[in-house]
Parts: sequence; structure tokens; C-alpha cells
Amino acid sequence: MSTAPLSAAPAALRQLIDELAQLPGLGRRSATRIALSLVQDNQQALQRLIDRLAEAQKIAPCPLCGNPTAVLDSLCGLCSSSRRDRTALCVVEEVSDLWTIERSGAWHGLYFILGGRYSPLEGTGLAELPLDRLANRIEQHEVGEVLLALSPTVEGEATAGVLLDRLKGMNIRITRPARGLPSGRSMEAIDGKTMELALGARQRVG
Amino acid sequence: MSTAPLSAAPAALRQLIDELAQLPGLGRRSATRIALSLVQDNQQALQRLIDRLAEAQKIAPCPLCGNPTAVLDSLCGLCSSSRRDRTALCVVEEVSDLWTIERSGAWHGLYFILGGRYSPLEGTGLAELPLDRLANRIEQHEVGEVLLALSPTVEGEATAGVLLDRLKGMNIRITRPARGLPSGRSMEAIDGKTMELALGARQRVG
Repeated sequence: MSTAPLSAAPAALRQLIDELAQLPGLGRRSATRIALSLVQDNQQALQRLIDRLAEAQKIAPCPLCGNPTAVLDSLCGLCSSSRRDRTALCVVEEVSDLWTIERSGAWHGLYFILGGRYSPLEGTGLAELPLDRLANRIEQHEVGEVLLALSPTVEGEATAGVLLDRLKGMNIRITRPARGLPSGRSMEAIDGKTMELALGARQRVG
Repeated sequence: MSTAPLSAAPAALRQLIDELAQLPGLGRRSATRIALSLVQDNQQALQRLIDRLAEAQKIAPCPLCGNPTAVLDSLCGLCSSSRRDRTALCVVEEVSDLWTIERSGAWHGLYFILGGRYSPLEGTGLAELPLDRLANRIEQHEVGEVLLALSPTVEGEATAGVLLDRLKGMNIRITRPARGLPSGRSMEAIDGKTMELALGARQRVG
């Protein structure tokens, strides 16, 4: 497929392709494919997409944790729930990490979304991370445990280090998820680093 | 990144992700990434995308060739141009192929978009191709040359065969683009089949 239309395409179509091509993960090729499918075969899908996007305009980040929520200027369902442990705070990199943890059903505290990870080479240095806001939240909301649920990657480790350093001296318990074998994977598919961690933290069962 | 939000995400966001995930080439992962970027950091891009999609609703296929065009029920710029050779018809598989040919500036006739290629295993058999509509167009518009500009692939060859068979006996000249070395590629990057065709059709230059 060609990567750019030209005068043979109407302006409205070229502008739609330009706009789609700016979305994360889409290039001109995929933007062209999507735009053509919407205008060629699927006017119903086009209308539905417009409606969904218009509804999405009513979404705003929760002012406390940053989780996208439907009602402007009010807390999200998690932060406003009376059933959550308000003294336990889980720090994640992105909204999608919050969703992953919620899906497990295993965390009953609240969240703090960093909105990034420590990666100076990619332009996210200490100044770009909301470290002061995190410290303020911990102090003002009488948080007792901070769970650092960062990705088990080099950047995640570096971010954890930055947070540990910043929170040093605060009277809180700082925890991290256990490292080890992931469920549902065959032994031969486990990478060396994971195996090393799992063996080092092995537990007696008999 | 997780592949599905759940109750932690507002309904409007979940519905937007569902809708985006149905676009060609997008899975739940990329749909989630796009939706989050639109609602989290980029309300302006969200509004622009809505506007562009609304404009795209005014696009309809040209009733003669199928090229998307801005004005409902009227011919596209190519079909309505007085400067095109109306006796020459270029058959392409998709709209994007038409754009590729137009970008070359080397075709001055009109177009016929098949909307697919002969591929019975993928569900596009003879009945799914607009063969009668093509034959009617050739007869009614006094076409003298039909250029079969199909992809140089197995499916493209099969489609050319089907068209040759259907147009057999009509009093027209049927042509195909020459096969040979593509411009701007080093010799070592040319595949064997292309080299075979280029050598077989070699031309005397001195």
C-alpha cells in the first residue's frame, strides 16, 4: 500500500490520514488503511467512533491518583471508595499498570501514578518525576505502606532506586512485589535473570 | 502494557478502546495506548480527530471509479476531468494503488477499482469480483485500452488471469505494466524472480 495519498484524494481524507498518523504507534501506512476502511466500507463505524471520542472528552484524570475518570473534578471510583485501605499507597508508572494490578484483585489500597519512569537518556530525569507530590501525598494522607509496583526492568529498578532515595527517612514501610517464576509459563521459557531471582528467594515447602 | 481495562476505567474509556480495537491493524494493546494518550495528555488532538472524522463523513466513493471523493453523488476529480483520456481504463485492486499510479504522473486515462483480488482461499472468488460491472463500463464508455495494474504477486497474477479470461473477445487492447528492475535499488537487493524477468525482457541500448 502507498504511504501517502495526493491530489487524487479529497482534502478531508488527506487531513484525516494526517491526524490519524500522529496517534501513538500509527504510521502513515496504517493511518491510510484505517481512514480508507472508515470512508469506504464502514460509515456506521465512523459514526460510532465519533460518538465514542465525544464521550471520551468528558474523561479527566482523577485529581488524587491520576486514574482517568468520567466526572470532571471529582475523585475516581477507587479514591472515593470507602472499602479501600487509605493508608496503603501503590506507586505505578502508568495508568495501564494500575489496571493490571486491579485486575488481579489483590491490592486493596489506593494508587499514585508517576506518569513515567526514571530514564534520563529518554528525557525523564528527576525533575520530570512528581517526587514532591508523592511525598506530600504520603504525609498529608497518613500513608503507612508504599508499594513500589514498577516494571521488573532496568528502568523500573532505576525508578525504584530514585523513589527509595526520595522517601528515605519518612516513617513508612516501603515494599515491592515479590520476584520469581510467573504463573502459567513452562520452565524452559523462563529467562535466566528471573530464574536466578526465583532460586535465590526459594521457599521451604516440606 | 495490559490489554484490557476493567471496572477501574470509566465506561466511556472502555467503549472507546473497544471501538478503536476494531479498526484494521489495531489490537487491544494499541487501541488502549491510543485511547489513553487521547484522554490523558491530548484533549486538543481528541477534538481535532473528532472534527476530521466528521468531515470524512462527507466523503463517498465516486460512482464511476470508486475513488473516495468529497461531494456526494458526483464524479471524482479524475472522472470529471476533461484532460483525461476516457478511452483508457486502468484496473487496480485498491484505492491506494490508484494513488500510487497517480503519484507517478504517468497515466492519463481513468480508473476502475476492483476492491479486491482473486483469492478463493481468502473468500474472494469470481462472484466477489465486479467482473460484469467492468465489462459493462468498457462497453458503455467505448474503452479502447484496459491496463491491468495489479500487484506483481501470485494473487495479482491470478487476478490478471481472471480478468483476461472475462474480457476475452471484447474488441480492446489489454496491457500490463512492464516488469523489470525497480529504480533506486542496488543490484544485490533485486530478488531472483525480478532479475529473471528483467533479463528476459532486456533491451538493446547500443
